[in-house]
Amino acid sequence: MNIEMIRAAAERLAGHARRTPILTSPFLDVIAGRRVFVKAECLQHTGSFKFRGGWSAVSALPAQALQKGVIAFSSGNHAQGVALAARSHGAPAVIIMPADAPAVKIANTRALGAEVVLYDRTTEDRDAIGDRLAAARGLTLIKPYDEPQVIAGQGSCGLEIAAQMTALGVTSADVMVCCGGGGLTSGIALALAADAPGLRARPVEPEGFDDATRSLASGRIERNARLSGSLCDAIVTPQPGNLTFPIMQQHCGPGVVVSDDQALQAMALAFDRLKIVLEPGGAVALAAALFHPEASEGDAVIAVATGGNVDPAVFLKALA
Amino acid sequence: MNIEMIRAAAERLAGHARRTPILTSPFLDVIAGRRVFVKAECLQHTGSFKFRGGWSAVSALPAQALQKGVIAFSSGNHAQGVALAARSHGAPAVIIMPADAPAVKIANTRALGAEVVLYDRTTEDRDAIGDRLAAARGLTLIKPYDEPQVIAGQGSCGLEIAAQMTALGVTSADVMVCCGGGGLTSGIALALAADAPGLRARPVEPEGFDDATRSLASGRIERNARLSGSLCDAIVTPQPGNLTFPIMQQHCGPGVVVSDDQALQAMALAFDRLKIVLEPGGAVALAAALFHPEASEGDAVIAVATGGNVDPAVFLKALA
Repeated sequence: MNIEMIRAAAERLAGHARRTPILTSPFLDVIAGRRVFVKAECLQHTGSFKFRGGWSAVSALPAQALQKGVIAFSSGNHAQGVALAARSHGAPAVIIMPADAPAVKIANTRALGAEVVLYDRTTEDRDAIGDRLAAARGLTLIKPYDEPQVIAGQGSCGLEIAAQMTALGVTSADVMVCCGGGGLTSGIALALAADAPGLRARPVEPEGFDDATRSLASGRIERNARLSGSLCDAIVTPQPGNLTFPIMQQHCGPGVVVSDDQALQAMALAFDRLKIVLEPGGAVALAAALFHPEASEGDAVIAVATGGNVDPAVFLKALA
Repeated sequence: MNIEMIRAAAERLAGHARRTPILTSPFLDVIAGRRVFVKAECLQHTGSFKFRGGWSAVSALPAQALQKGVIAFSSGNHAQGVALAARSHGAPAVIIMPADAPAVKIANTRALGAEVVLYDRTTEDRDAIGDRLAAARGLTLIKPYDEPQVIAGQGSCGLEIAAQMTALGVTSADVMVCCGGGGLTSGIALALAADAPGLRARPVEPEGFDDATRSLASGRIERNARLSGSLCDAIVTPQPGNLTFPIMQQHCGPGVVVSDDQALQAMALAFDRLKIVLEPGGAVALAAALFHPEASEGDAVIAVATGGNVDPAVFLKALA
């Protein structure tokens, strides 16, 4: 994993991924007590940064593997990112989802051209189903974060942040990143280290699911005690990845932990002041920037708003 | 009013207004039956395109007038655009608002540094108050649309659309524009005529408040029968402007009229598929693109999503 892979991924993504804007509001600056810059990655294709990693991985495949197709396990943003990337390359995509996933997510993934294979979470082994399908059809598995080409794709977001913030004259600041398995966080961290070394990536997690924060503090991979029950479901993973954790150790500052309520407040402020839609897991970095000013120094902070795929009911809760 | 004024305004706006992105979604393409491109002007500073016109007008003032300050009548987007533009230029701003305007709009305008003067709609004469203040303090009135430098500022949005759509390879399409007094519509129409003559501006209005559409059809300025009762309050004006109407006559295609319900549906789809927040009046152009495919021809349509300053209660209604 290195910066050249990220630059190569960014070249493959050029003209396909959206160069998402940096948004600001004087009202947010007042809350945070410093200038706040928001990288609006919710405006990426499929509503989250996951399209970058999906496209990077699919576009890196040899022609023969592309023709056979790809497979992914996901009920959420990774599924849609891989599905759209595969369709754009004319490659078949199989997405394995739990049968109790929200109907709208299943329908969206199918509408993006993927074959959705459902399994029963209580009686069936997801990995066995995936292995069988992959072997029978010669499909390539695209893991959601612990996969070099996926990290490289997410890192393209970091190259953009480095270029955009340099153009804005901000060369020293913390970059809050919503962190699940660490694919985006480690990709951004590598990109910043190369192109804007005064900007430092900081993983942000929801309370109770702070595996990356605890792992960075202890120096070894720590697991979450539970994997469900968070409003920020999109960024809950068992533990940091074997590839992503060493990168985060080398290049990231300490993690920041926010409450579900702070994530909801950040969603409401993004609605009101930036006119963007965030999901809870996509709002934790903004929550850290706004409500944990003590966690960083300097006169500016950057927050990556990673995704906006939220059910209306949850969004209404944030606005209430 | 000419294209050189628009280019000069765009130069004054460079580095200050945001170059808002063009967003797309395969799901919207399916609904419209053609490719849909959305100019997300709700992501502009203060949440609407009005910042462009405000900045253009303020930045065109001679130093002495700037020092004395500006005045505007508005309870909405124009107020915030003028207030932020004035503050950025170090100029005092007085905004005249009805005393029954929503408290949050009054607070927002004050927070942007403006002096808000309230009047009683039933007993006081707004214009007399404005004239008295302007005369006493030497303030310059910035009208919301029938003012050359305001039209020039809004036209900068059209220059961006021309450049962005040309880069995307779309050189022939209708450009749906949410239309109140016609400042944005006429500015965009002038810009497109110069830089992308295959793109044609189309004013879009809510049912019952279709003065521009009827005026274009009859060839003379027609008035709305009433001025309240629309969900799309931000784009309700008595009639097209004396400056804006002849420009629309020369450069625009026929108007398109959408229902309030279609505006709400477009808001919900913008939430779901583009992850942007639109107000009803800022969503009518997208509603026309999605729900009135018969109104235009070709394989692409462009919609200008003009603003996102919406109360949570109205937004919840759209998502319900």
